[in-house]
Amino acid sequence: MWAGRRMEELPSPAFIVDLDVAKRNTQRMRERCWELGVALRPHMKTHKTLEGARLMTGGTQRKMVVSTLAEARLFADGGFDDILYAYPLPFDKVEECAILAERLDAFHVLVDSPEALALLKERPLGKDKRWKVWLKIDCENNRAGLRHDDPAALELAKAIAEGTTELSGIYAHCGNSYSCQGVPEIQSVARATTVLTLKFMDKLKEASVACDVSSIGSTPSCSRPVPEMAKLTEVHPGNYIFYDVQQMMIGSCQLEDIAVRVLTRVIGHYPHRNQMLVDCGWTGLSLHSLGQLPTGYALVEGHADLRLVSMTQEHGRIESTTGKLDFAKFPRGSLLRLIPYHACATAAMHPIYYVHSQGHVVETWKPVRGW
Amino acid sequence: MWAGRRMEELPSPAFIVDLDVAKRNTQRMRERCWELGVALRPHMKTHKTLEGARLMTGGTQRKMVVSTLAEARLFADGGFDDILYAYPLPFDKVEECAILAERLDAFHVLVDSPEALALLKERPLGKDKRWKVWLKIDCENNRAGLRHDDPAALELAKAIAEGTTELSGIYAHCGNSYSCQGVPEIQSVARATTVLTLKFMDKLKEASVACDVSSIGSTPSCSRPVPEMAKLTEVHPGNYIFYDVQQMMIGSCQLEDIAVRVLTRVIGHYPHRNQMLVDCGWTGLSLHSLGQLPTGYALVEGHADLRLVSMTQEHGRIESTTGKLDFAKFPRGSLLRLIPYHACATAAMHPIYYVHSQGHVVETWKPVRGW
Repeated sequence: MWAGRRMEELPSPAFIVDLDVAKRNTQRMRERCWELGVALRPHMKTHKTLEGARLMTGGTQRKMVVSTLAEARLFADGGFDDILYAYPLPFDKVEECAILAERLDAFHVLVDSPEALALLKERPLGKDKRWKVWLKIDCENNRAGLRHDDPAALELAKAIAEGTTELSGIYAHCGNSYSCQGVPEIQSVARATTVLTLKFMDKLKEASVACDVSSIGSTPSCSRPVPEMAKLTEVHPGNYIFYDVQQMMIGSCQLEDIAVRVLTRVIGHYPHRNQMLVDCGWTGLSLHSLGQLPTGYALVEGHADLRLVSMTQEHGRIESTTGKLDFAKFPRGSLLRLIPYHACATAAMHPIYYVHSQGHVVETWKPVRGW
Repeated sequence: MWAGRRMEELPSPAFIVDLDVAKRNTQRMRERCWELGVALRPHMKTHKTLEGARLMTGGTQRKMVVSTLAEARLFADGGFDDILYAYPLPFDKVEECAILAERLDAFHVLVDSPEALALLKERPLGKDKRWKVWLKIDCENNRAGLRHDDPAALELAKAIAEGTTELSGIYAHCGNSYSCQGVPEIQSVARATTVLTLKFMDKLKEASVACDVSSIGSTPSCSRPVPEMAKLTEVHPGNYIFYDVQQMMIGSCQLEDIAVRVLTRVIGHYPHRNQMLVDCGWTGLSLHSLGQLPTGYALVEGHADLRLVSMTQEHGRIESTTGKLDFAKFPRGSLLRLIPYHACATAAMHPIYYVHSQGHVVETWKPVRGW
């Protein structure tokens, strides 16, 4: 019902995606990986839509990462395959993983403990299949994974490669790239993660554990790759389809690469406190910058002098950074575009994405939610 | 498919509602209002479900407040009526409001500017109906509304009461009660808001502007009412159906009144950094305490010594507040219950609520999202 309409007609708050920018972002990441000589296994967690997945896989509909089984089911039902559920195997979800593994050509799971592996061994797959299992290693990111230099990691890799399970790959997430500022810092994390991962691959080889695939990821590291990454098999960034203010501040992208906005309207003028209200609260944006940006919770596109100072459930308070707010410039009903700090978090608040090209809606995308 | 199952069988993360506690909370608020002699017009923004609305309206299915038109449509379609859309009339939504106003016995809108009123006057309702319009006044809360002592407020009230619009009521939100600590502070805000609202009602009377209805609200003020509130016509709290840690810290409720939890499972042990991971990140909880609680982003029920120190999209990191984490007490796959800081924000992250009584699922509720 929205296709062909002008963006200005959309009900606000609205999550809008510039299709041309998103296409360019996904195209560039493919080219970057091609030049580097590594495969791209894009992560779907940011958008969680079939349409976004088609863009990110370049139409092959193969080779992807998901963060939830809800995503896995969406993509499996939508004709996608070679899906890696890159999450420490949750003990309550083994049976559901087995069903997907039996149904798809390649549904991969990930473990970082012998206990998780034992659960897989206790539930052999039908159809003469073996579980495709990735080992998660932690290369100084300090979230999931066995430490790269922990002897237990090599032991677990060996155990995965035996019997009813096979070692599909080694997975490291360089989430520590999110605390970087600027390209040199990003590249330093990317290099360190790559070197540690490759060192682990060497150990596997020395121990005669068959494993061809190594994968690292994060949008900062894959947007600013280092030559060492060419020795990896694949990479798995996700946020880059949209990018956001956080990525821009880290150094992953430029302002013009950010494909998403929240469209909001002015709903009230309060001159006695030099403030106006907009119809976007935390249900439309999330609290993810924690208000720490110089412009508050977001950037207001084209208005560097505006600051989104606070949000409640459905209201946002906007002030001027330079003193007096010029209310005449922002009549009630007028539109502003908020550039989100964290696109994954903002997208997660919206049941529909309005996708436009040059200001006209061309598609709507419906993300999957839940687990 | 979940009814009758034990909570321990639910897939995590899961938003769970204790039906007995929610019923008791809604029953107590009805009794409190009855004793006070004011009508209760409960706010639906916290849960956004038909089932929650039935509990809050005591089965009458009449008299409620909503924060979005998506809620209004849900309740109108579900057989509810007398719905107040208590949000500064968004200029893009007038036609949709008109359709609801023509369809329902009583669909009320709210304004705080002559410009918004003008839009209503330009779009008279069919079926010989007049717009039911509330005036929002600001009694020191500093969000929407004309200031209670602004002469423009009285002028706008007069203009509403003329022609194709009628003045249905005067609305004040004492959101400033959220910065209170303890019952005396809550009651001081409740009293101040009540007194200012009643003063405004007197002004209307003096000016011969017909208006019988005055309404203030917020869960803190209505959970700890002051006798002066008896002179109001109605109150409009919302969060109290669930309550949460924030309300407990403000002084609105006790721990045993909090009806909601997020069920989460341990997914990994990382003894080298004295941390475990759970399968609840900000998609399952929101970031709303900003980690400022002594226990981090939530309370972990029954484990005052655990702290949820950080969250990413699907992971939560838990540490011990007392030193060494006893991993043997929390095997992988074991369940923890997080008590949310802000129930409205946590509920907003979940496509389904699992509603239980004494540990057995009795219903599932599906909230409406969007606008």
